[in-house]
Amino acid sequence: MEIKQVVPEELLTSNAHELEPGQAELIGYAKSTEDVSDFMKKANEADKKVITIGAHTGLTGATYPHEGEWFLSLAEMTDIISLDKETLTLNVQAGVTLAQIRQYLADTPYFYAPDPGEKSATIGGTVGTNAGGMRAIKYGVTRDNVRGYDVVLANGDIIHAGSLNQKNSSGYDLKDLFIGSEGTLGVITELQLKLRTRPRYERSMLVGFEKLDDLAPTVYEILNSPVEPVALELLEKNSVGYAEDYLQVKMPKQEGAAFLLLTLNSNDEKALNRELDEVRSIVNSAGALNIRDIDEKEAKLVWNIRDHILTGIYAAATTKMYDPVVPTRYVPDLIIQSKKYADEMGISSAFFGHAGDGNIHICVLQEDYEDVQWKKMLVEYEQKLYPFIAELGGLPSAEHGIGLEKKEYLSHFYSKEYMNTLKAIKKALDPKNVLNPNRIFDL
Amino acid sequence: MEIKQVVPEELLTSNAHELEPGQAELIGYAKSTEDVSDFMKKANEADKKVITIGAHTGLTGATYPHEGEWFLSLAEMTDIISLDKETLTLNVQAGVTLAQIRQYLADTPYFYAPDPGEKSATIGGTVGTNAGGMRAIKYGVTRDNVRGYDVVLANGDIIHAGSLNQKNSSGYDLKDLFIGSEGTLGVITELQLKLRTRPRYERSMLVGFEKLDDLAPTVYEILNSPVEPVALELLEKNSVGYAEDYLQVKMPKQEGAAFLLLTLNSNDEKALNRELDEVRSIVNSAGALNIRDIDEKEAKLVWNIRDHILTGIYAAATTKMYDPVVPTRYVPDLIIQSKKYADEMGISSAFFGHAGDGNIHICVLQEDYEDVQWKKMLVEYEQKLYPFIAELGGLPSAEHGIGLEKKEYLSHFYSKEYMNTLKAIKKALDPKNVLNPNRIFDL
Repeated sequence: MEIKQVVPEELLTSNAHELEPGQAELIGYAKSTEDVSDFMKKANEADKKVITIGAHTGLTGATYPHEGEWFLSLAEMTDIISLDKETLTLNVQAGVTLAQIRQYLADTPYFYAPDPGEKSATIGGTVGTNAGGMRAIKYGVTRDNVRGYDVVLANGDIIHAGSLNQKNSSGYDLKDLFIGSEGTLGVITELQLKLRTRPRYERSMLVGFEKLDDLAPTVYEILNSPVEPVALELLEKNSVGYAEDYLQVKMPKQEGAAFLLLTLNSNDEKALNRELDEVRSIVNSAGALNIRDIDEKEAKLVWNIRDHILTGIYAAATTKMYDPVVPTRYVPDLIIQSKKYADEMGISSAFFGHAGDGNIHICVLQEDYEDVQWKKMLVEYEQKLYPFIAELGGLPSAEHGIGLEKKEYLSHFYSKEYMNTLKAIKKALDPKNVLNPNRIFDL
Repeated sequence: MEIKQVVPEELLTSNAHELEPGQAELIGYAKSTEDVSDFMKKANEADKKVITIGAHTGLTGATYPHEGEWFLSLAEMTDIISLDKETLTLNVQAGVTLAQIRQYLADTPYFYAPDPGEKSATIGGTVGTNAGGMRAIKYGVTRDNVRGYDVVLANGDIIHAGSLNQKNSSGYDLKDLFIGSEGTLGVITELQLKLRTRPRYERSMLVGFEKLDDLAPTVYEILNSPVEPVALELLEKNSVGYAEDYLQVKMPKQEGAAFLLLTLNSNDEKALNRELDEVRSIVNSAGALNIRDIDEKEAKLVWNIRDHILTGIYAAATTKMYDPVVPTRYVPDLIIQSKKYADEMGISSAFFGHAGDGNIHICVLQEDYEDVQWKKMLVEYEQKLYPFIAELGGLPSAEHGIGLEKKEYLSHFYSKEYMNTLKAIKKALDPKNVLNPNRIFDL
């Protein structure tokens, strides 16, 4: 494998927007599981810490390197190895991007269900954070769509976790332990992804509401009906504006300041139509201003806008984004209260996200505040926001991870004994604290 | 909590049918999480091993006590605490049985999806083995239907794992680590179970085939169609006979020696009818002798027969049962080959199980063989069976666990490095090896 002493500058920055560029001693570009294993053994011998990195799209500062640390890049492990049609399994290397998977499957009857907004993320990165995305209500999160993988442990040992079996009572569930562990327990190198057959029919609608407060309770009513949406996204008009400006396109006209973007699918067209009728009746009685059925072409446009809201906001303004999750019945409370906190502090905010599974993205915008003052304001905001989320029974991160950025807030959510259990597992699997050290928690 | 020095004799035996009665020093009957925590602290002080036990329905010898060990019974923790209709969550103590949950929910629109055959098992036991049952194809296994729980660790600490949130990227997935760990990492005391709204329509059919070899490939064809069955069970005629004798009932008449019992459900009656037509067309072209649509009353009878096959076999003959799982495309191979091994050794066998998810129950019957010879024959059979299952990419246990009975065969399935990882986790969470020691593996 290629090892470079000069690390590309862009990898030294953090998408968490809070830190000066970091410093790494070198970067290794792995091409195979064996490369990763060799690299880990070398790092152990040299007593070095290893920070794994893929497409550098993480949002929590998890790949930010500290002096003397080594970077292990999986960005060149981009092979799509095979498609097994019998078990509907796609075998890929960890550096393959979501966009690459989508393109590869475009001409097949199959799809990989998880659909995070950032399509340039690697599959390895999304497995590291157990990314969720748009289709989690119907198809689950990344965890539910990974059958197995090869993972290199901190000492360089290689194991395979998971299998193509649908039941398992044969020892501890290692597969789910590494997923969402943010690379702190091992380096996942090659994966077996679960595919599904694309349903024959898919329909979307865009529903306008006068304001966010009107829209929020509707989500809960749809979820408690027999209808099972694929996606149920919440979009504020001003959030949409950032994506429109960025992409230089316009969303199909819709009344109101808050929108619900809803997709349903089925193999049975008549059954799908009946479900759409049921949704129309729910949103009508909930006071929707307008219901717009959008055709395939429009749906593509609207979903592309949805996928670019964050990119748009980031391009337009220095923004801090949060990705909490709450039990779905508390989605209205979360939105109303977190907006209120921001308003009270004179901070502009924008909301969008996966209303259907309780995962709302809260963006607060720096605008004219000076850096020093803004940092203080963020701390003040977070010290209100996180305890409130904990009170609702929510969690600080639904899909981006804890990384460096949120670890100080975990104590609002987990007891000392819980944190000790997490730490005991880290120490057991990485006793020398080599892999992504001090991410999620400090030892 | 009540502690008795005299342990009920029936708890000292093992359902694995292989051991003389064991010996336990005492038994504690917990009523609460705090009781369990106190008991664990006492056991630590006294330097004793603790074997947790529920309804004593386990099939792997996992609760078999060795001299000087303490029993911790959760069989008296039988409170159904609350039903939360907003999040569709049922809060129960770990000693509640599956039958009790079913009865409690009978008059509500809700159901708990996992459906293992043995309804007298406690929910705690089924979580310990990540039990699967009949409905796993559509609704997943126990793991997928538990939102969270309180668990007492080996040192007596109490933590809560899981939550009511639908996404989580906030630290390691502790929830899935304890599920399926057979009580070796902690004692789960109180659980939040995921409920679902019962679909409006449900239909079953019973399909007859001339022989098992004809039936097996059909399963795979149904699974690869757009139809999504709730249950897809395989029944051999002779297996059914044991349940009929035990229950003193008769199954609705059906031609052939091997049956497929299939249930579909939906909220949309017309869509359901179209799915049933699709199934009929698949099984017809696969050479079914006869397709019998069974009404609600008949379905109840047939499912009751299905639930009692194992009880029937156990009542009629000394039997060793296996619960392997293979990727579904290998179901035919597994059945044909494991029957062949038995035939070649002059052993009678019976097959039934969850064909839809690759989990087949293989029963071999002692009949006239002497105990000593039979034990040797079983070892010989297992030394053929397990490597073959491993070759197919299968696992030794789909839903009953490893316990004491199967641990020697794990090495066919997992590498040394994999086993070391399991052991490292056990040592991290239970450093004194107090909880269910030497289950799954020896330290």
